[in-house]
Amino acid sequence: MPRSTVHTVDVTFGDCDPAGIVFFPNFSRWMDAASLSFFMQCGVPPWRELAKTRGIVGTPLLEINTRFTKAATYGERLTIATHVDEWRAKVFVQVHRITRLRADGGEDLICEGREVRAFVMRDAQDGDRLRAMPVPDDIRALCS
Amino acid sequence: MPRSTVHTVDVTFGDCDPAGIVFFPNFSRWMDAASLSFFMQCGVPPWRELAKTRGIVGTPLLEINTRFTKAATYGERLTIATHVDEWRAKVFVQVHRITRLRADGGEDLICEGREVRAFVMRDAQDGDRLRAMPVPDDIRALCS
Amino acid sequence: MPRSTVHTVDVTFGDCDPAGIVFFPNFSRWMDAASLSFFMQCGVPPWRELAKTRGIVGTPLLEINTRFTKAATYGERLTIATHVDEWRAKVFVQVHRITRLRADGGEDLICEGREVRAFVMRDAQDGDRLRAMPVPDDIRALCS
Amino acid sequence: MPRSTVHTVDVTFGDCDPAGIVFFPNFSRWMDAASLSFFMQCGVPPWRELAKTRGIVGTPLLEINTRFTKAATYGERLTIATHVDEWRAKVFVQVHRITRLRADGGEDLICEGREVRAFVMRDAQDGDRLRAMPVPDDIRALCS
Repeated sequence: MPRSTVHTVDVTFGDCDPAGIVFFPNFSRWMDAASLSFFMQCGVPPWRELAKTRGIVGTPLLEINTRFTKAATYGERLTIATHVDEWRAKVFVQVHRITRLRADGGEDLICEGREVRAFVMRDAQDGDRLRAMPVPDDIRALCS
Repeated sequence: MPRSTVHTVDVTFGDCDPAGIVFFPNFSRWMDAASLSFFMQCGVPPWRELAKTRGIVGTPLLEINTRFTKAATYGERLTIATHVDEWRAKVFVQVHRITRLRADGGEDLICEGREVRAFVMRDAQDGDRLRAMPVPDDIRALCS
Repeated sequence: MPRSTVHTVDVTFGDCDPAGIVFFPNFSRWMDAASLSFFMQCGVPPWRELAKTRGIVGTPLLEINTRFTKAATYGERLTIATHVDEWRAKVFVQVHRITRLRADGGEDLICEGREVRAFVMRDAQDGDRLRAMPVPDDIRALCS
Repeated sequence: MPRSTVHTVDVTFGDCDPAGIVFFPNFSRWMDAASLSFFMQCGVPPWRELAKTRGIVGTPLLEINTRFTKAATYGERLTIATHVDEWRAKVFVQVHRITRLRADGGEDLICEGREVRAFVMRDAQDGDRLRAMPVPDDIRALCS
């Protein structure tokens, strides 16, 4: 079983659109927060520090795929369960499952997102360029 | 050739993250704006009016798939070309291609998003519930 | 002493701008969440319900005034203490104080916001128009 | 007369809240974009370049004051007129006036914001610290 972490989100009024439901890009925003929270809960230092010590500035996305099954609205608390589904040489696949507790104790799946991410560092020559780098072994070990 | 519309976005400082590049959920936000812009450029009235006249409150997403190829940053102007790639009975697939003009006159593909959307209306019994409805023929005709 | 509630926020990577600090409109977003959280912690039903039972759709802002004293960044937890500083006939003044715990047990003031808000309802004739209404006595009693 | 620039914003569906009107922190976001647009229209290079050449990383806010007079909604185009109202030794006051054209050719004031901002640079010793600096004479000359 891969390591899995949990991140909770309380949906606010401003997260919702004129239809009264969560404006969907917020789910991407929360999955990104859950992604970072995953690394920090696994013991990886914040990008801010890794940028200085190892040049790693983050894990930008190469691809996202999200399926929405139920709407959510403000006043609700959502739970995001996150794990890495696949580690490849230069990319990894992170999966986020967002659910809401039902009154009967069960849970509703709100949406599920699959993200392909890569670790990137600044280019030695041109600091404005970001370059993909191999998945660092120590980070992978912490997160598996 | 399906009908295609263009929507432009000027990337702002606040759209970018500590790595200095566009925080990716903003691409979803812009694609959503491009989606609505597509319908309005095709002559479909705003949801606000359709909610009153026909009960249609919008076209929420069932699924998104976005591939990111290049980063973008503030001060840049992006172009989003939008069309409907496929009309099914109850859903449609909208494609957004976000590009940036290069100095040499060519264009860089920043990302491409594929959205599965459905038209929804409020449930007659429970106004808080949204229900998927068949794609309206007149709207499809305007947008093809 | 007026009633005061506490709302916490975990700053995420995407909340920060290319300077690496919280993009300031997010403070307004969090204060709005703290404002709603205040009402809910005081026992006021969500606007969604009040819209149906009493026509109240929310407490939009007439004016905001925020002073920023220190920057905050991702990975930090912020605390928002909220109270109503003044109740007038048609408006009220809500104050939000955002702080961060220091390692020495003290707290840093990040910013303080003062919001003038009014309760609004939909106009009986034109449902698209929002009208300010007198502060409801029962809500005021719950929140004082 | 101080130099004034104009920045336009097309309000999107996702900029609006469940009451169907612009979620107010978006006005702060747009004023920030108008602030940067002001500097760029005045001929000041982007912060990204100034960070490298002169260490200037931006003009964070010390205080904002915004008065809201009318609501705006999606499908509307807003105009933001921006000027610097006051230059002091270490700070400047920037004013943004957001209006909407009426059908009769007049304009509605949506809101007006007054921002106190300072130029900041990274601390020489501790690159994570930002320090206020005197308003650069050349930038002031370009913007007056």
